[in-house]
Amino acid sequence: MMTPEEKLKSLGYELQEQKPFHPAVAMGKITGNLLYLSGATPTPVDGAAWDGRVGDVYTVEQGYQAARQVAFLQLQMAWNILGDLSRIKQTIKVLGMVNCTPGFKDTPAVMHGFSEFIYEVLGDAGVHARSAVGVQALPGNVPVEVETIFEFE
Amino acid sequence: MMTPEEKLKSLGYELQEQKPFHPAVAMGKITGNLLYLSGATPTPVDGAAWDGRVGDVYTVEQGYQAARQVAFLQLQMAWNILGDLSRIKQTIKVLGMVNCTPGFKDTPAVMHGFSEFIYEVLGDAGVHARSAVGVQALPGNVPVEVETIFEFE
Amino acid sequence: MMTPEEKLKSLGYELQEQKPFHPAVAMGKITGNLLYLSGATPTPVDGAAWDGRVGDVYTVEQGYQAARQVAFLQLQMAWNILGDLSRIKQTIKVLGMVNCTPGFKDTPAVMHGFSEFIYEVLGDAGVHARSAVGVQALPGNVPVEVETIFEFE
Repeated sequence: MMTPEEKLKSLGYELQEQKPFHPAVAMGKITGNLLYLSGATPTPVDGAAWDGRVGDVYTVEQGYQAARQVAFLQLQMAWNILGDLSRIKQTIKVLGMVNCTPGFKDTPAVMHGFSEFIYEVLGDAGVHARSAVGVQALPGNVPVEVETIFEFE
Repeated sequence: MMTPEEKLKSLGYELQEQKPFHPAVAMGKITGNLLYLSGATPTPVDGAAWDGRVGDVYTVEQGYQAARQVAFLQLQMAWNILGDLSRIKQTIKVLGMVNCTPGFKDTPAVMHGFSEFIYEVLGDAGVHARSAVGVQALPGNVPVEVETIFEFE
Repeated sequence: MMTPEEKLKSLGYELQEQKPFHPAVAMGKITGNLLYLSGATPTPVDGAAWDGRVGDVYTVEQGYQAARQVAFLQLQMAWNILGDLSRIKQTIKVLGMVNCTPGFKDTPAVMHGFSEFIYEVLGDAGVHARSAVGVQALPGNVPVEVETIFEFE
């Protein structure tokens, strides 16, 4: 059985060191055995920044791919903090925010990109409670932002 | 004194078994004595799906009724997971998201439908911290989605 | 070294007693050593209520100032509940919601008003995980609402 790190590698993802972007804002905070992560947004692909919302600029499938990327980034943040993704015992709660057109109905289909990636990498420890809602704006006008609470040991 | 289940029955609500809709997304997750529920959205009334936002399609009063229904659904999810609503000791945190017109000012009045229902059924154990915000879109274009954290024993 | 209360006073802020605005909605709820606060919105300045969104009615700088005020209000709520801000050991998680124009890119710059104020007053105990998102509407059409989870002893 592969570790989460090996699984990520087999999927073509390389974990990198990451630093907080502001002295008052941490990548994540630990209380007891819970890790609360800051929200993550998708990074540029082939040098092109994400810039637009789902429903006009991006399709559901493109939003799904952005959400997969955000799932990787949340795991990378957890890895930077915990040092080892096998320490994750449960994925407790996910708040998925999709930058979309008014009345867009398919926020869950976009967020499945996040959920299926986490499940693929962490297995049963990746099953989570979730909300998937549509927002007016996200940092840099990216299509998806997600924040996650993990339980670890 | 009535149990929460008896109270729900007296209000005309019948608890039903519920299943998760996706293998990676649970109805709720437990860590320690906390239950984090996935967001719930109101189900069709008399076969008519909710489809629209508060402020033009729906009035504040209709949003209030939708929020009451979501409160019942969150209790039903807790009941499916905990087996007994009397185990709920506190309602810790509620995030209420109202699908509404830009600049709509009365998200709290809509969310009172949720808060008053939970308080009616759980009594003091139903008092909660809350945010009530207006969003751009919700799954299926329903008017309200709410996610709740309960403490149980 | 100043206490958080002394620090607030030196910044010109006066802590006041506060009451919940609805019997079912608490200012905050405690579970274990965590305090989950209800969302706070900025109060009128010199009698003028905040009424508008960032991106057209308010500039980023005005949003930043509103977010600072919300940071003070969350500390005031914590003080009302805990009695002493020195009991705060960590600021775990902050969800910042900015009422803004569609596609507004600078929600983090607005939320820095919150983050920098908390950090100024609480020092290392004020460093937090955060999401900063743009929403469609907030109570009373204020520009910012924030909800915070603190760890205390």
